[in-house]
Amino acid sequence: MSNNSSKPTKVKGMRDFGPKQMARRSYLLSTIKATFTKYGFLPLETPAMENLSVLTGKYGDEGDQLLFKVLNSGDFLAKLDQDPANYTAHTILPKIAEKGLRYDLTVPFARYVVMNRNDLTFPFRRYQIQPVWRADRPQKGRYREFMQCDADVIGTKSLLCEAEIIMMLNEIFNGLELEGYEITINNRQFLTGLSEFLGQPNKESALCVAIDKLEKIGRDKVYEELTIQGFEQSALTKLTPILSIPGDSKAKLAILKKQFSGIASAVTGLKEIQETLDMVEAMSGDLTKVNFDPSLARGLSYYTGTIFEVRMLDGSIGSISGGGRYDDLTGVFGMPDIPGVGISLGIDRIYDVLDKRNLFPPNLEQNTQVLIINFGDENRDFTLSLVKNLRQQNISSELYPDIAKMKKQMTYADKNSIPLVVIAGKQELEEQKVTLKDMFTGNQFASPINEITDTIADYFKR
Amino acid sequence: MSNNSSKPTKVKGMRDFGPKQMARRSYLLSTIKATFTKYGFLPLETPAMENLSVLTGKYGDEGDQLLFKVLNSGDFLAKLDQDPANYTAHTILPKIAEKGLRYDLTVPFARYVVMNRNDLTFPFRRYQIQPVWRADRPQKGRYREFMQCDADVIGTKSLLCEAEIIMMLNEIFNGLELEGYEITINNRQFLTGLSEFLGQPNKESALCVAIDKLEKIGRDKVYEELTIQGFEQSALTKLTPILSIPGDSKAKLAILKKQFSGIASAVTGLKEIQETLDMVEAMSGDLTKVNFDPSLARGLSYYTGTIFEVRMLDGSIGSISGGGRYDDLTGVFGMPDIPGVGISLGIDRIYDVLDKRNLFPPNLEQNTQVLIINFGDENRDFTLSLVKNLRQQNISSELYPDIAKMKKQMTYADKNSIPLVVIAGKQELEEQKVTLKDMFTGNQFASPINEITDTIADYFKR
Repeated sequence: MSNNSSKPTKVKGMRDFGPKQMARRSYLLSTIKATFTKYGFLPLETPAMENLSVLTGKYGDEGDQLLFKVLNSGDFLAKLDQDPANYTAHTILPKIAEKGLRYDLTVPFARYVVMNRNDLTFPFRRYQIQPVWRADRPQKGRYREFMQCDADVIGTKSLLCEAEIIMMLNEIFNGLELEGYEITINNRQFLTGLSEFLGQPNKESALCVAIDKLEKIGRDKVYEELTIQGFEQSALTKLTPILSIPGDSKAKLAILKKQFSGIASAVTGLKEIQETLDMVEAMSGDLTKVNFDPSLARGLSYYTGTIFEVRMLDGSIGSISGGGRYDDLTGVFGMPDIPGVGISLGIDRIYDVLDKRNLFPPNLEQNTQVLIINFGDENRDFTLSLVKNLRQQNISSELYPDIAKMKKQMTYADKNSIPLVVIAGKQELEEQKVTLKDMFTGNQFASPINEITDTIADYFKR
Repeated sequence: MSNNSSKPTKVKGMRDFGPKQMARRSYLLSTIKATFTKYGFLPLETPAMENLSVLTGKYGDEGDQLLFKVLNSGDFLAKLDQDPANYTAHTILPKIAEKGLRYDLTVPFARYVVMNRNDLTFPFRRYQIQPVWRADRPQKGRYREFMQCDADVIGTKSLLCEAEIIMMLNEIFNGLELEGYEITINNRQFLTGLSEFLGQPNKESALCVAIDKLEKIGRDKVYEELTIQGFEQSALTKLTPILSIPGDSKAKLAILKKQFSGIASAVTGLKEIQETLDMVEAMSGDLTKVNFDPSLARGLSYYTGTIFEVRMLDGSIGSISGGGRYDDLTGVFGMPDIPGVGISLGIDRIYDVLDKRNLFPPNLEQNTQVLIINFGDENRDFTLSLVKNLRQQNISSELYPDIAKMKKQMTYADKNSIPLVVIAGKQELEEQKVTLKDMFTGNQFASPINEITDTIADYFKR
């Protein structure tokens, strides 16, 4: 071991999770997993690393920049054949790094499906909860390592899956007792129609990229961007009322159905939204939380149908969930025409919202229940046997490991929120009575030494 | 998205875990976590990446080679100032990669303790279950991504912690119903004494490195290595009987105590082993599984006291657990004199042993319980409402998403091991009776339509 005893540092934008945060994350993830399971989704995990051939070109140029690349092991310069004077980061990268860290869970899932196509039964439902890594500039609420939590159904075009996603989202947030959120929904087919409606039938993707930023940069900037992309003033004038159409989802659907009746893809998109909402209703789902928003676009290029986003109504944080339907996710890996739909939950953001609103149940931590004071040899046999008996009763217990002052041992119990302390020194053993101290009330009570395990078990049953 | 539709590949030495493996891993990890919790250990997680300044120099030269290094983001060549003609992998590495992937859980834990020294209450007990990465040559049973599972107590020299590690190991393997393992124990102080006994008082570490390979390369090669390191023939002659001392732990301790009575560190080491075993006995622990092995050395240089290793007696696989006491793990980060002791469980190897011996309980997978056949619009309202009601009763259920042939839907249920199928077509709805099919027995039975949820709930209560 080297001897440079310098202060260690943590990687910027990444976090340690101590016992309290772990207990809360575990509560959050269990709630989500329980819902996924109820809806027939089964767990999958993929490796942290993927070959760069799998990852590159799937997330746009910006995404490629944000991939963490892993240096080839050993003499990583060995494959370089060009003149060193001409090295640039761009040209030598493919020679010195062949692997990268998972950027999301969707591409690894697509890779898994293609590699296991012959063993899977379609429609295939999976959920996946794993960290992903992005070489982003760290800032408040944006981490370079964060947990993603995805559920996807692949191998069916049924809109039932869309309806079930809405049901699951409501169920998860109900389970977490989270209020004040909105599930926004739109459809890429409608956006294709919108582009046509605005006189630019082939600029759906430029339109999506621009209006996706509405909340972030405001309407003026979005319109500037659209103008640069070739949308005329008359188009922008036609766009304005659509982006601010009033009423609830049904009202909006009714208005737009009339307005877009001549544009086939828009008709399809609106019909799909309508059917999805009808199915949610038939499952007695809560439609008050669902909002059809014609301006919802989502950045990713692979969506082809329904798109989702969940936002907090108070605008305190970016979207806490997003997803949509894709009709050819695996095509890039040589397996075309496999439709699917998925949703991704932003665990870290949901955590922050629950934390800020005090929605985590108290006492999630599985603290030690009993601390036995260590008086050294004078009570060693008794304390060792007691700690063993308590653990056998499934009561998490510790014998303080050192013969320290009573005060120090009590402080340890206090700081670790251990509710019950057992005091059995020489005097107590002679009197065949053990003293118990309830650390929350401060009350002390005695128990006959031969009933001590039962007394403690009863104490925790109350 | 790029259009090179080539077959995707997985990174060599890394694995996907489908639903079945996930269920088994979850069973394995829950058993371990439950034991750790009972003994007062709380969970911790650290980031996948650490700064290379934290990782480098902690695992020996070989370890440094096996670290996965992460390329700096953006123009990673920017910090290179030397003449490109002189680039070597060794000299440019520190300039182009500042981060690496976690190689084990011990060093990140030490980093965490030092960074949080003022907020932690010592003794501090933590467990940590996370993947680690090593750029090893992949081979059977050796992966480049694998799960480590560590429990450490830091801030105490008490041998109670050693005794508790033995108790925990026995409890975990009992919980997994695993037989035929052996917990070997030794002590670095004894090995220091042994080195002195062999006339090479300062070559403890060379001695450890060599005898650590006994099982792997055999005695002759170990002796060759020791000779190169300066151990004389007479020393090797003295070593032989010690490496093959007969009897159980107590017998060995008795013999060695006499033989080493004049060598202080050996006396200390043997006394610590004795005390540890005595405490296990006082906790009614199973000592038949514990074997004091004077030849156990363990590779890592930071151990200073007790060392542990768990092996399968049939020799079918390498060690499934290892650990030991260290007295200065955090010293390298500027926080000296914090003693601790820890154990690490090889999750992947334990998994393989359980798998090979058929020790995983059946039906660990949380499969969907009910599949409702989809007949399309003719029964849509009924099926949507039924799937919702079943989920409300916590019965995991699916409505087949597409209007497919009955046979295809049945095959889906079969392949996914879904035990119960609900058939409610036009005819059934007219007769107000639903048909249920038990997929394991093949039996069909009917239920009145208004009692269907109760009928299914009762079915799963049996």
